[in-house]
Amino acid sequence: MAERTPEVPGFRFAGHAAGIKKSGLPDLALAVTERPVPCAAVFTQNLVQAAPVRIARERVAAGHAQAVLVNAGNANACTGKPGHDAALRASRAVASALGIDDALVVPASTGVIGQLLPAEKIEAAAPALAEKLAVYGAGDFAQAIMTTDKAQKTAVRTLAIDGASVTVLGVAKGAGMIHPRMATTLAFVFTDASASPALLQAVLRRATDHSFNVATVDGETSTNDMILLMASGHARHAPLSEGGASCDAFESALREVLRELAEQIVADGEGAEHVAEIEVRGTATDADARTIARRIATSLLVKTAMHGKDANWGRILCAAGVAGVPFDPEVASIYIDEVAIVRGGLAVGPAAEDEAQRIMARPRYGIRVEVGTGPGRASYLTCDIGHRYIDVNAGYRS
Amino acid sequence: MAERTPEVPGFRFAGHAAGIKKSGLPDLALAVTERPVPCAAVFTQNLVQAAPVRIARERVAAGHAQAVLVNAGNANACTGKPGHDAALRASRAVASALGIDDALVVPASTGVIGQLLPAEKIEAAAPALAEKLAVYGAGDFAQAIMTTDKAQKTAVRTLAIDGASVTVLGVAKGAGMIHPRMATTLAFVFTDASASPALLQAVLRRATDHSFNVATVDGETSTNDMILLMASGHARHAPLSEGGASCDAFESALREVLRELAEQIVADGEGAEHVAEIEVRGTATDADARTIARRIATSLLVKTAMHGKDANWGRILCAAGVAGVPFDPEVASIYIDEVAIVRGGLAVGPAAEDEAQRIMARPRYGIRVEVGTGPGRASYLTCDIGHRYIDVNAGYRS
Repeated sequence: MAERTPEVPGFRFAGHAAGIKKSGLPDLALAVTERPVPCAAVFTQNLVQAAPVRIARERVAAGHAQAVLVNAGNANACTGKPGHDAALRASRAVASALGIDDALVVPASTGVIGQLLPAEKIEAAAPALAEKLAVYGAGDFAQAIMTTDKAQKTAVRTLAIDGASVTVLGVAKGAGMIHPRMATTLAFVFTDASASPALLQAVLRRATDHSFNVATVDGETSTNDMILLMASGHARHAPLSEGGASCDAFESALREVLRELAEQIVADGEGAEHVAEIEVRGTATDADARTIARRIATSLLVKTAMHGKDANWGRILCAAGVAGVPFDPEVASIYIDEVAIVRGGLAVGPAAEDEAQRIMARPRYGIRVEVGTGPGRASYLTCDIGHRYIDVNAGYRS
Repeated sequence: MAERTPEVPGFRFAGHAAGIKKSGLPDLALAVTERPVPCAAVFTQNLVQAAPVRIARERVAAGHAQAVLVNAGNANACTGKPGHDAALRASRAVASALGIDDALVVPASTGVIGQLLPAEKIEAAAPALAEKLAVYGAGDFAQAIMTTDKAQKTAVRTLAIDGASVTVLGVAKGAGMIHPRMATTLAFVFTDASASPALLQAVLRRATDHSFNVATVDGETSTNDMILLMASGHARHAPLSEGGASCDAFESALREVLRELAEQIVADGEGAEHVAEIEVRGTATDADARTIARRIATSLLVKTAMHGKDANWGRILCAAGVAGVPFDPEVASIYIDEVAIVRGGLAVGPAAEDEAQRIMARPRYGIRVEVGTGPGRASYLTCDIGHRYIDVNAGYRS
């Protein structure tokens, strides 16, 4: 990673081991701009929200930020006033090391719920963390926010706006508790584009809806999730404006970055070996298609069939049948990539299933379900569920 | 089992190996009354309904039946007209062996979806199956309907009505695809009580709502599920009438039988080692409490924490927080049996969690979540999820 870490003009990054994780691995990440910059964010929709989420929400609402401080190993959720105070102490320590106003530091935490954040460890580490800030430090940032992730997750796109090169760098962590109805998981997007906070917020919300909000690992919704977008404005172009071609190009790049991060997260779904894009077509509306796709994507029996590389289309059709969207099962067709295994609600035959099972051995494939002739369509990313998910989550705290 | 098999006056039962299961184990079950008797049933709410479900629905609607024929090893779902014809052939063969009208045979199937029922095997086996019918054959019936079940599932209650002894015998099979929104799984209740079809239907629907409809293994809803109630009327009492004390007593007994079967099914949840009754209190309405209880009961992270005997209350509170029912997490309390581990949204402490973890090593315990001071309450049965669930469901067809 280190040698490939992209630069985003206007940002410096760092990662540090502050002793929050029992493993001693890096657990504190910091990204800083030269001055306060426009920012936007989407947050978890869980009623139960961690202290850093509440603080971040308030600070991002002001429209500008200068730093994001992330710790892994402790979610600082369900920790009451002591947790809130600990989060404030942590951001104050980092603000002090940076010489900036602590209201400009956006905090984020990930890890175990219900344990107080050890603010004193972050206070002790803040000077060393600030010392490590580097233009090419995004890889260290990405490493320090990992929890049960097997790999770092970054995605980058560059585009030209008004002749200026613009970079969009995304960094995320997974891997369980991944499900929509929120800005799933922690993700941070750093760009040198120039835009107002309001425009960033609108663009981020739409891009999230087409990326993180159609990806699932286990149907869970965490107390700590957020996606933060910071725009340094270092690229020399006219500020983006809603509806303009430049804005569309930026939004596309942002969506691609988020989509790539979401796919990395699903692929790293605590033991996942296969990622499937569930596509549903033929409903009356896109929303109906999404409802069916989500039901299939979250079905445990579909996910275990994926794990067994079993073209068990009965489970797919069965899951679709309880999504709450009416359709006629007797006209349904199911494809694994381009291989039809069900037509008119009936099995195509053993040869087609054999072919489908060969495709299901791949790390990534598509499952397409056509339930009628309507114009609605939607897709959803999901992964298989296997033994490692059980191991990771039955033993996570102990 | 055999020696403890209860008798239900008016019924005879049999089980037989017809060669539908690859294992060669018994896979054909039959229960028969001396003449057509009142019956009632509830069926899956999946849009995708197996051929036997469609036929059974039509036949039960007539109000009387004389036999129920169940095969395991093949669901005969998503098999189109050939599947429908196969189901009709199977019931015709058994009706012929019994010398009754085939419209009086209620069919049911369980097993793999999408494979045509081998009607010829049932036709060949029908005479031997009928030959085996015995007053004490309920154990054989229970054995022959098993699929991935580790154990037979029966429950029995006796009560006195007008001085007559009445028996209510329930037989069920699990173990995956167990979730409400339907008459979950296959269950058959045989009683010698005397009642009209309409009364049986009303009583069955209410009793199901308080038993099978508040139990979950994996959130799935099968294409084949039904609960059938047949009442031979052999007990010498006045026919039950809605609102009467006898009817209430019968409904209580029925509910207990169904509840016990539901609990046996959850306990046998494909690798489950622990059953928890999730109780939610303090909402505005019972429906709100049920919504929260269901969300907790179906949370993969709660179920894996149960598997790890981990009093991970953060996951419980987190699941409650996305149920869609507003509450203040800062007043929430959580108990494992009678041990409080969360009060006012905060951890009680390590000693309480240690105590809770000792309780969670037991095969059965309660998780109580109090989210306010409202009168609403509800409970939901769930089980842990472990490696055997993955093994069973990733390899079920192969």
